Amino acid sequence: MSGAGKTTLAERLHGRMQKLDFRVELLDGDIIRTNLSHGLGFSREDRDTNIRRIGFVAELLARNGVAVIVAAISPYRKVREEVKLKIKNFIEIHVDCPLNVLIKRDTKGLYRMALAGQIEHFTGISDPYEPPADPALVLHTDCETVDRDTDKIWRELLVCDYIREEFLPGNQDSGLAFAAAGEGI
Amino acid sequence: MSGAGKTTLAERLHGRMQKLDFRVELLDGDIIRTNLSHGLGFSREDRDTNIRRIGFVAELLARNGVAVIVAAISPYRKVREEVKLKIKNFIEIHVDCPLNVLIKRDTKGLYRMALAGQIEHFTGISDPYEPPADPALVLHTDCETVDRDTDKIWRELLVCDYIREEFLPGNQDSGLAFAAAGEGI
Repeated sequence: MSGAGKTTLAERLHGRMQKLDFRVELLDGDIIRTNLSHGLGFSREDRDTNIRRIGFVAELLARNGVAVIVAAISPYRKVREEVKLKIKNFIEIHVDCPLNVLIKRDTKGLYRMALAGQIEHFTGISDPYEPPADPALVLHTDCETVDRDTDKIWRELLVCDYIREEFLPGNQDSGLAFAAAGEGI
Repeated sequence: MSGAGKTTLAERLHGRMQKLDFRVELLDGDIIRTNLSHGLGFSREDRDTNIRRIGFVAELLARNGVAVIVAAISPYRKVREEVKLKIKNFIEIHVDCPLNVLIKRDTKGLYRMALAGQIEHFTGISDPYEPPADPALVLHTDCETVDRDTDKIWRELLVCDYIREEFLPGNQDSGLAFAAAGEGI
């Protein structure tokens, strides 16, 4: 959900991969909304279209050996599954944080507005959120540091054999896409 | 313009580059309209948005060392120049064909409909087309074969040092984007 820590974790991971000269792109929800989905709203249909577009771009990059980190609110399971089927090496990460903590944090002041009824279709308040049925990872950002959560993602990538100690640029055979998973990265 | 030969040439070039194991993607106007710009129409504003989106995706790919061939109707000079500034190694190719030949070809039957007033905003008929001021190449598809036009593009790529005889996968340092140029590839 908004404020759960998707962008923070994605940026940390992105930086770590860049240091290793990985070909890596971060597709952040806000940037995508500006560049690919301006004009789309927050109805279920528009949200699904937005996620499909992110999936389309992620797949283009991934099949050319570029690792893609997606940090976007993607509340509906069905479209996530649809995108997952299209992309090789897709990892779904659920960035979980209890609603009361999100409301307390409220870094952008959006929860206050949503609770006051000033924002329609706000995921978790006035719009549904469907948690993934079987994510590769669930990160609880209310009780874990950014560093430790990033380590958990890193370990998952090692376990999946997507990152290796001997990694060097040019050795990157197949792309890697991290999926938008509602509250997830 | 529609029917000038953009897709045909782009596909031929794409095939040739694939054979050399180039990392290459073809962004065709119709496919992009379906996947990234569904809902956009053909007003100047919507056309410009469509071209900016193609540019955004082309740049993402190009900066990761993927060659991008864009085949799209892009009738307005200003947005082409805007995209050109954002993308390194941008080559603008004007695929030119006289209107009377296009009307005679009319492979999709669109000119007949446009001339009958059944299609609004049809480039070259009811919508403007602004030819590029200084394209890298102008191809006259009414008096040249697909093979020879593809050779001309190939030669241009060699001259620009984007393709080399000794090209091998992995040696591809910087991306390459061919620009949508109205009637151009």
